[in-house]
Amino acid sequence: MVAVGTELLLGQIVDTNSSWIGEQLALAGIDSHFQTKVGDNLGRMTAALEQALDRSDAVIVCGGLGPTPDDITRDAIAAVMGVELHRDDAVVERIRSMFYRRDRQMPANNLQQADVPAGARVMDVQPGTAPGLICPVRRAGESVSEAGDGATGGGEKVIYAVPGVPWEMQKMVSECVLPDLQARAGERSVIRSRTLRTWGYSESGLAELLGPEMSRLDATGEATIAFLASGMEGLKVRITAKAADDETAQRVLSGVESRARAVIGGAVFGADDDTMESVVLALMRSRGLTLGLAESVTGGLIAARLTEVPGASDVLKGAVVPYDRVLKTGVLGAPDVAAVSEEMALAMAAGACRVLGADAGLATTGAAGPESHEGAEPGTVWIGLHLDGGGEAVRVRFNMARTMVRQLSTITALNLLRTRLLNRDG
Amino acid sequence: MVAVGTELLLGQIVDTNSSWIGEQLALAGIDSHFQTKVGDNLGRMTAALEQALDRSDAVIVCGGLGPTPDDITRDAIAAVMGVELHRDDAVVERIRSMFYRRDRQMPANNLQQADVPAGARVMDVQPGTAPGLICPVRRAGESVSEAGDGATGGGEKVIYAVPGVPWEMQKMVSECVLPDLQARAGERSVIRSRTLRTWGYSESGLAELLGPEMSRLDATGEATIAFLASGMEGLKVRITAKAADDETAQRVLSGVESRARAVIGGAVFGADDDTMESVVLALMRSRGLTLGLAESVTGGLIAARLTEVPGASDVLKGAVVPYDRVLKTGVLGAPDVAAVSEEMALAMAAGACRVLGADAGLATTGAAGPESHEGAEPGTVWIGLHLDGGGEAVRVRFNMARTMVRQLSTITALNLLRTRLLNRDG
Repeated sequence: MVAVGTELLLGQIVDTNSSWIGEQLALAGIDSHFQTKVGDNLGRMTAALEQALDRSDAVIVCGGLGPTPDDITRDAIAAVMGVELHRDDAVVERIRSMFYRRDRQMPANNLQQADVPAGARVMDVQPGTAPGLICPVRRAGESVSEAGDGATGGGEKVIYAVPGVPWEMQKMVSECVLPDLQARAGERSVIRSRTLRTWGYSESGLAELLGPEMSRLDATGEATIAFLASGMEGLKVRITAKAADDETAQRVLSGVESRARAVIGGAVFGADDDTMESVVLALMRSRGLTLGLAESVTGGLIAARLTEVPGASDVLKGAVVPYDRVLKTGVLGAPDVAAVSEEMALAMAAGACRVLGADAGLATTGAAGPESHEGAEPGTVWIGLHLDGGGEAVRVRFNMARTMVRQLSTITALNLLRTRLLNRDG
Repeated sequence: MVAVGTELLLGQIVDTNSSWIGEQLALAGIDSHFQTKVGDNLGRMTAALEQALDRSDAVIVCGGLGPTPDDITRDAIAAVMGVELHRDDAVVERIRSMFYRRDRQMPANNLQQADVPAGARVMDVQPGTAPGLICPVRRAGESVSEAGDGATGGGEKVIYAVPGVPWEMQKMVSECVLPDLQARAGERSVIRSRTLRTWGYSESGLAELLGPEMSRLDATGEATIAFLASGMEGLKVRITAKAADDETAQRVLSGVESRARAVIGGAVFGADDDTMESVVLALMRSRGLTLGLAESVTGGLIAARLTEVPGASDVLKGAVVPYDRVLKTGVLGAPDVAAVSEEMALAMAAGACRVLGADAGLATTGAAGPESHEGAEPGTVWIGLHLDGGGEAVRVRFNMARTMVRQLSTITALNLLRTRLLNRDG
């Protein structure tokens, strides 16, 4: 991996593209041993590409394919290949038609994006104006045994050039670079993954429950399971399958998913791009229910998360944040009990329903820390839920810093509502 | 820069350390042309360090100084220097006493952190158990003219080794690596910076107002001014001064700061680590005032920000999020006017004071988008403030995506309260 851009070296932009590509290469089972950042300078870019080719069979270079004078990745690749750039008329037409569809004239400087090193191939996938390039490079047979990474010094190698715009780059890498790399490696296979979004088990708890399935997968090699803790976004379980074709991979994923759901299903709130807030809003909406919040320890975080989703207003009536305990009794009509208690959580949830005119009331009260609060230890949180005329409350304890206590309380509260809605149907 | 860690290549962690160091080097006026990531593998680390020394006069290697078997940066440096590691008794004692102060025994594997390549020097600054190393390297006089970066191939060079733990790394780089680099470059100077946190002017507006001072600084070279847009955190104005010693640098910074404040002072809400929420809470607290919020378009974001600050409860009474317009009239007692209007913003702010029993009421109502809301275009927001029995309201328009509209409304509302409090004194 070579990431191009002076702004990366200056720390003005963090290079997340390389991290994303590194992750995809790992998922695809392709070893990647070095990543380099280099500025928009022809001499240094050429040097970085030469070094990368010395130690690896394939190089992905990301960035520097735009239409401005400092976009010189094409020139650096041509220098490394020892060839000239020529203007590809088909690419010119592709770019021109993109502007045409947006009712715009193509500026003259976009023409340079159609310059292709002789012998290179333009990728079929072209999400933006910058075309991706597949550039074969013949290298003399010198060895770089010092690196000890098994790369042969010479022979037929390849440079892939992709733009630095993340969504364009990601589409090209997924749909073109990875399949091409696998074909070169003699593998004709596809990599597909599915993420189960969970809340309720710890990472070790999930690992224990999924242990038998993971052992089975270890033996068959048809897929892998990995965990990723993501704060307020929950704990992700990622299933990755490598198969001969998309259909087979999807079938393997569906099989693993259904076996996983059989043991951890209660904790799975969604898949892939689902979020806890979008899932809860959809469940409420489909049941024609409205929601009111009473947030003390979370201080507005649950409301802020839900209202981030466009169209939340058909479910969420509103929220009361009674940060001063007086408002718990005053505005919400709670009895004069301990601020962090089951009774208070229940009364706040009922009060949210009544005051906000909602079908369901969800409440949080606790000690976020660093200080204890009315005798409650930092990290102690009561969550109350009022629905169908009845209430329930759960107590949780997060032995963490203030920010995490608030974030984990937020997802825990939303998950309590989610599971209640599902059990209500059963 | 060489960042060490297989987890960086796999994309499990994004390499923000290199970005931070790149920024500091730029601030210090030191050219940095390449950054490399390499895994925990002795052969590849050695190769990466050799390449880095070929093309640069100094190399900062970050990570791999911990106590576990895969922490092998010390070994790689010794290999490159062509020397052995020896155990430094003074470092052993320093680490042992750190554990002792925490009432813990030093585990035996921490001993390897005291291994130092012969000829290397341990940094005086040692915030954690991992000591930083300054390692002189004598190189043969070969040239790498291809890179064209002006680095001489041979001569006396240096490797700095710092740990990957960000706060430890940052302290060592700031207090040891940068001064040492500058001394080697023949400069005996210090770099100091101060950040003014602002809200109210655009970047181009700030640039125009500060134009004369920036021209003056261009001419004298005593300091530079840079801008950084930071969403809900406001717009940062960073002043950086390079001077012979700390006292001189601080005097230059104070001079530039006071001249800058003379023209943009009204927009400066704080300096360095101040946040808008901490500043507003402090202003309210010192005046013995309490605050109530009525958040519609921001949906709890202002409350969530304020309650992130420990001790916010002595100022913030609470918040009402009347997401359903019925609650604006019902709970807050607003008249039946257009949801996004001056009248509504004023009535919500007054309602927040009354319902929440607060001295000041702050309210937001608007259309976050992507849809318009009761006739208001997406991005249109009214902010209301009620204080001392009177109200004021401002209308803003953010032509941006939903998330940014909500975030910028949050800081704009808090800034309205801040300026009102300051004018109240005047």
